[in-house]
Amino acid sequence: MKINIQPAQGKLGILIPGLGAVATTIIAGVEAVKKGISKPIGSHTQMGTIRLGKRTENRNPKIKDFVPLASLDNVVFGGWDVFSDNVYESAMNAEVLEPGLLFAVKDQLETIVPMKAAFDKNYAKNLTGTHVKTGTRLDMANELMADIQNFKEKNGLDRVVVLWCGSTEIYYEASDVHSTLAKFEEGLKNDDHLIAPSMLYAYAALKLGVPFVNGAPNLTVDTPALIELAKETKTPIAGKDFKTGQTLMKTILAPGLAARSLGVRGWFSTNILGNRDGLVLDDPDNFKTKEVSKLGVLEDIFKPEDNPDLYGDIFHKIRINYYPPHGDNKESWDNIDIFGWLGYKMQIKINFLCRDSILAAPVALDLALFIDLAKRAGMVGIQEWLSFYLKSPQTAPGLQAENDIFKQLIKLENTLRYLMGEDLITHLGLDYYDDVFANQ
Amino acid sequence: MKINIQPAQGKLGILIPGLGAVATTIIAGVEAVKKGISKPIGSHTQMGTIRLGKRTENRNPKIKDFVPLASLDNVVFGGWDVFSDNVYESAMNAEVLEPGLLFAVKDQLETIVPMKAAFDKNYAKNLTGTHVKTGTRLDMANELMADIQNFKEKNGLDRVVVLWCGSTEIYYEASDVHSTLAKFEEGLKNDDHLIAPSMLYAYAALKLGVPFVNGAPNLTVDTPALIELAKETKTPIAGKDFKTGQTLMKTILAPGLAARSLGVRGWFSTNILGNRDGLVLDDPDNFKTKEVSKLGVLEDIFKPEDNPDLYGDIFHKIRINYYPPHGDNKESWDNIDIFGWLGYKMQIKINFLCRDSILAAPVALDLALFIDLAKRAGMVGIQEWLSFYLKSPQTAPGLQAENDIFKQLIKLENTLRYLMGEDLITHLGLDYYDDVFANQ
Amino acid sequence: MKINIQPAQGKLGILIPGLGAVATTIIAGVEAVKKGISKPIGSHTQMGTIRLGKRTENRNPKIKDFVPLASLDNVVFGGWDVFSDNVYESAMNAEVLEPGLLFAVKDQLETIVPMKAAFDKNYAKNLTGTHVKTGTRLDMANELMADIQNFKEKNGLDRVVVLWCGSTEIYYEASDVHSTLAKFEEGLKNDDHLIAPSMLYAYAALKLGVPFVNGAPNLTVDTPALIELAKETKTPIAGKDFKTGQTLMKTILAPGLAARSLGVRGWFSTNILGNRDGLVLDDPDNFKTKEVSKLGVLEDIFKPEDNPDLYGDIFHKIRINYYPPHGDNKESWDNIDIFGWLGYKMQIKINFLCRDSILAAPVALDLALFIDLAKRAGMVGIQEWLSFYLKSPQTAPGLQAENDIFKQLIKLENTLRYLMGEDLITHLGLDYYDDVFANQ
Amino acid sequence: MKINIQPAQGKLGILIPGLGAVATTIIAGVEAVKKGISKPIGSHTQMGTIRLGKRTENRNPKIKDFVPLASLDNVVFGGWDVFSDNVYESAMNAEVLEPGLLFAVKDQLETIVPMKAAFDKNYAKNLTGTHVKTGTRLDMANELMADIQNFKEKNGLDRVVVLWCGSTEIYYEASDVHSTLAKFEEGLKNDDHLIAPSMLYAYAALKLGVPFVNGAPNLTVDTPALIELAKETKTPIAGKDFKTGQTLMKTILAPGLAARSLGVRGWFSTNILGNRDGLVLDDPDNFKTKEVSKLGVLEDIFKPEDNPDLYGDIFHKIRINYYPPHGDNKESWDNIDIFGWLGYKMQIKINFLCRDSILAAPVALDLALFIDLAKRAGMVGIQEWLSFYLKSPQTAPGLQAENDIFKQLIKLENTLRYLMGEDLITHLGLDYYDDVFANQ
Repeated sequence: MKINIQPAQGKLGILIPGLGAVATTIIAGVEAVKKGISKPIGSHTQMGTIRLGKRTENRNPKIKDFVPLASLDNVVFGGWDVFSDNVYESAMNAEVLEPGLLFAVKDQLETIVPMKAAFDKNYAKNLTGTHVKTGTRLDMANELMADIQNFKEKNGLDRVVVLWCGSTEIYYEASDVHSTLAKFEEGLKNDDHLIAPSMLYAYAALKLGVPFVNGAPNLTVDTPALIELAKETKTPIAGKDFKTGQTLMKTILAPGLAARSLGVRGWFSTNILGNRDGLVLDDPDNFKTKEVSKLGVLEDIFKPEDNPDLYGDIFHKIRINYYPPHGDNKESWDNIDIFGWLGYKMQIKINFLCRDSILAAPVALDLALFIDLAKRAGMVGIQEWLSFYLKSPQTAPGLQAENDIFKQLIKLENTLRYLMGEDLITHLGLDYYDDVFANQ
Repeated sequence: MKINIQPAQGKLGILIPGLGAVATTIIAGVEAVKKGISKPIGSHTQMGTIRLGKRTENRNPKIKDFVPLASLDNVVFGGWDVFSDNVYESAMNAEVLEPGLLFAVKDQLETIVPMKAAFDKNYAKNLTGTHVKTGTRLDMANELMADIQNFKEKNGLDRVVVLWCGSTEIYYEASDVHSTLAKFEEGLKNDDHLIAPSMLYAYAALKLGVPFVNGAPNLTVDTPALIELAKETKTPIAGKDFKTGQTLMKTILAPGLAARSLGVRGWFSTNILGNRDGLVLDDPDNFKTKEVSKLGVLEDIFKPEDNPDLYGDIFHKIRINYYPPHGDNKESWDNIDIFGWLGYKMQIKINFLCRDSILAAPVALDLALFIDLAKRAGMVGIQEWLSFYLKSPQTAPGLQAENDIFKQLIKLENTLRYLMGEDLITHLGLDYYDDVFANQ
Repeated sequence: MKINIQPAQGKLGILIPGLGAVATTIIAGVEAVKKGISKPIGSHTQMGTIRLGKRTENRNPKIKDFVPLASLDNVVFGGWDVFSDNVYESAMNAEVLEPGLLFAVKDQLETIVPMKAAFDKNYAKNLTGTHVKTGTRLDMANELMADIQNFKEKNGLDRVVVLWCGSTEIYYEASDVHSTLAKFEEGLKNDDHLIAPSMLYAYAALKLGVPFVNGAPNLTVDTPALIELAKETKTPIAGKDFKTGQTLMKTILAPGLAARSLGVRGWFSTNILGNRDGLVLDDPDNFKTKEVSKLGVLEDIFKPEDNPDLYGDIFHKIRINYYPPHGDNKESWDNIDIFGWLGYKMQIKINFLCRDSILAAPVALDLALFIDLAKRAGMVGIQEWLSFYLKSPQTAPGLQAENDIFKQLIKLENTLRYLMGEDLITHLGLDYYDDVFANQ
Repeated sequence: MKINIQPAQGKLGILIPGLGAVATTIIAGVEAVKKGISKPIGSHTQMGTIRLGKRTENRNPKIKDFVPLASLDNVVFGGWDVFSDNVYESAMNAEVLEPGLLFAVKDQLETIVPMKAAFDKNYAKNLTGTHVKTGTRLDMANELMADIQNFKEKNGLDRVVVLWCGSTEIYYEASDVHSTLAKFEEGLKNDDHLIAPSMLYAYAALKLGVPFVNGAPNLTVDTPALIELAKETKTPIAGKDFKTGQTLMKTILAPGLAARSLGVRGWFSTNILGNRDGLVLDDPDNFKTKEVSKLGVLEDIFKPEDNPDLYGDIFHKIRINYYPPHGDNKESWDNIDIFGWLGYKMQIKINFLCRDSILAAPVALDLALFIDLAKRAGMVGIQEWLSFYLKSPQTAPGLQAENDIFKQLIKLENTLRYLMGEDLITHLGLDYYDDVFANQ
């Protein structure tokens, strides 16, 4: 049985709050890909394949040829930012991509000028916004809805998704104002300062039935009020925090250690990076939001309560250091203290010379394309199958998240197979062998 | 439906060709575990758990409590070696485990004295055996069968498995004498030098219906003749080459890169180790066998033919260096050149300060226990579900091996669930969410 | 001309404030060396050689055979601590040396019981002392003098040195009370809280003409008042902060980069350690003292004011992280961003798996033996030639310190040659070649 | 007393056998520096300073302002190569410098066209030369002399030096034909194949009184015959093998370990590089020459015969791996097994992401400028003070080389001070302190 999915006709708008390093890297990259200058490496929707049927069938189409995704040629970008620089200027400032490449798509980038941002400096002390909306939270939410609709009309779009690429907000937890949609809407009217700026974007999108993806670790749509709204308007949501760099490596390696029942005594993770993200995270309040998002993954993967002998006493420490000489070229160093047979100690050291925005851009793009697919497939609320891309995935209340990237991948792939009416894959594979059971 | 499995009653003999570092580490470890001195860390059968049913059911028993495995208390060890040292002496020479620990199990280890080995120096030039059988290959095979039966009777065993922990033999490919059982048996009579010593052990075991596991990269049971014999005597087999250290890391990390469609341009792997294995592999002919086993994994995981833009031009180089200062504490260093969004380059460096035999011992133990389970479940021939533990897994002819350790793990786990009549797990998980499809 | 040096007759007492990891490692080690169990590796006085005369003379005696040092057989240890554990108990707690080794010298270690410490918790918030002196600072200083004299008499010692191995105190700068000896002595009477505990030990020692070495980064003897006292009583002093681990590596590597005029743009240094020192340094006030000591070395070596193109814009960051899994096995990781010809960028990564107390112990021992030599040679005040062993060397007021370990080594060696009337070495070496100048 | 040095008037020709990666990086760089585009970072003659007098005098001029060196503006480049590409083409092929930078100096580089090389494929099997001289060795030597003189006249040069930047030749030792000048000249006539191509260049240069520098590890001028010729024509020589990358790091780090009497048990060094040098060294015969050059440094620095307890049992292994993905960006990884106090083990790992030609170019330039200075100062034969730049320095017969880079630096600096009549520096520095000796 195949799910009924509306075709990906017409144009898809991707509206991005936060036109900084990640956003400009996505946009410039998609334009370069359209021109045939570059390839969308790292985008699993564009480059990845998916096995269908049995191993011996050799059916391994590209994902984009298997499920009906919006074509990159039909994508139109826009967004909001606290600075008024156009995307070309912002990309040059970000120093992620080489000037030569940016020059080749300059014309396209210059036409993308940010709309004024909904901003509250209390949520990002190291940032000073100059290109911002005024008025109460309700005023700002209404303006954002108007922004979305104007953008859609002006560009003749068929569909829109909103993709949060803004900075990490300071740490906060859900409180009463986030507990129901009614209380949240009351809070908007009262300009309640517990409503974070990112929530205004999410509210505006969901109110219009526009899917929302949260690429930062702040709660945003991971609150009862906004989940309620998503269900009411039958809109899919996904979050939170793009999974890149060190956490990506961690959710690759930790499942491998757990698979082999190797014990872990300590995991020390340090990062050096010098971009705007590094500057914002130099503030302890903002770092805390990130830290919580990053710390959780090991606990979920190792399940210390089920395996106390192996994982009951892990010392896990994460540090992010602002280090300007490296710019966007984030570098991580991990020291992992493991133990094996009879408790004998071993160590693993990983040094990842990565590029923050280069890793994040295709993740963000895939999420935008997949959540648009979800919308067209009629999928509503939390899309756990997209947790593959997320550091701290939202799940149904009370359901433990899967952080193991390989389980997340199977979940994603089997969801795609399910949508398209293909057999789910279990890797059992006994049927490749004749008479495997002698005595059954 | 649950498969009919004979219970794990009585004693299980594990007979090991090659009572060196790995074998003595298994034996001493199992004795220490029996005495409550140490824990069998790294043994997935003993320490690992398996999820059953839905996530919300919280059913995560230990594997050994889920499937009927032989208890460690019922395991009896024996073996063959080219030196006459007993297991205590050999363990002291190997310098893997601390003298204090070995002293605590000295009484048990001293009673295990090797039987004379079937040996041919042409297959391991850097080794000089003194404690070896004489006569033709047929004579040696017959003696090995007698050894197995005597060992079984003397120790009052219910069942036996044979577990190859000998050195890597020089590189050879399957030839005519290995093509059918008839030709192989003719070759035994003719003392054909193309029949490697390891094959004599495999032949002897399989002829008696005793399961055989090959922990080294030499072909051994991965030949038509011996597969034919396994089927004839309804015996399970598994091989080849215990997956530990650098290759373990490689089959953890590579699937993670492939999952994210990150390109790979080069992978340089170097190892330093100073144990007897390092000495044998210092000979280019023996190294070649190992190299072939180690090189294949990337190709299988990355599938360059399906993803030429990402993996069509990987420069993969592996070096093993004999470095006495480190003894058994094998250390690997990997440099991986990857590329992401728009082709931008990144690097990953992994430094694994591991312990060769500490990683291998629980792998070998698990294979022995699982292949005994397979035998009792009536499973015959190649056991692909054990590829989880193997660097270069045997598969049905023409079937591409799975080297991705996470697919191997699902295969193993779903096989266990299948044997016990539990639902296979697909990680789809849509049913945790109400009304997920708005419009179906 | 040879300096007149009194012979090293009789016994030398080494009195140590702080009988923790470093001190117990020195004491246990010296006892093990005396018994012939171990070798004093890392002690340049005991193991190092010194070239005398021309290269072709082949005169390379051990340092201890060249200058008249106290023999280890004539060394007697004692000390003070805030805990009452004897040295055997304290060494077992420190978990630096193996129990087997400590057991072999247990009798010697148990007899060394600490005297009560002069302590003020405000200077080390993470420590709680139970074995401490009471009364004013003057009372404590007088008690310390009595302690020293009693120890000397009781053990029939010829000479004594005091060697600070206590924890790092919180950050403080010299203030008025430290500006002259008169004001300092007035402060003692008034129990002035700006006089740190470590200064009481220094005062007591110097007052008695006993040499004082400061192994921590706190000021202590690096104040006008105590330098004045040292001159008055004709006593040598040395400080501050034993040079080990990461800073040792930094003062080895940085001179190498400077020698080649390679530019430096950033130097990121992180440490993980889990001993008591790590715990104390987890307090930001104590870390600051350490940070100041560690940060200065690059500036001195690179001299940015003389070489602004190469070293005018170095981002230097140091982190110390408390990480219990590693205990005393301090591990450092450095990332160094350098640039060469035409500004092209390169990177150096150093991962040092060191042992904190193992590196510190021989440094502390050498300083004790050399400062005793200085005393016998009649050398007074700051001993800059001992800066070889120190992270933040004291110098004459206004004189820039040399942190380049190789210049420090030449200084040390040429000082020894000078004391013994040997030629100073300049490495000119033109005289090995005949007729080197054709036209002079 | 100051040495009489002829002024650096007029133009200096630098003639380079081997216009590959290193040579083109020097030439392009010097042209870029002349135009003010880049800085000669890494060139100690251009960027480095030298301390004169006492520390308190603050006299730290740049070296080029202290000694009379040829100005870069007066340098003219030329050379020979086995390919006919001009320097611009060759630099583009080498892929060391960015195309943008090369484009800026294209006009200058295109005019430099190689003369035909003296070549013998037996000395570099992985190279196939097409632009080569024919005839006997004597013919070739005579042609090279004519080349040098023509180049000098054509460019109106005052002086010339020859700087070997060609590939490493296969391993050979000095034999009878190299033992005297007479035998060597006889060998030229007989076209004796034991005379390596590099020796023809050296002979031609020295015969004309032109200084010769050997940047590769082959013997070349390190033979009695050519040293005799150098003395006869009163010409300075220097060699062998530019000290860069891993060996540079080794001669920085090893003296630091020796300074502290830390023991060394093993040193494993591996390299990956993908340039033409890597290709040539993939041949075992050529690698042997390099290996011998690289292996020697530790022995000299650690002096195992004087310190058997510390350095008597070092396992030192060096590997170079051809790894195309990295091109000229040579990367080294070192694992160093050290031991300290009481024999406790520690490890140091160094990962150097360097650039081969970027490190070599300023070294080669400095050698050319300094040997021209030596010539003008009337210095004859082996210039040991230039060993600072060389992996395997030539010395007087029977004299042990100094490989410690810091001793080499003092030798170089004190030689410069000696030439200019400044005080030699001993770092004694007792005179900064008043009344340092109480009792003398």
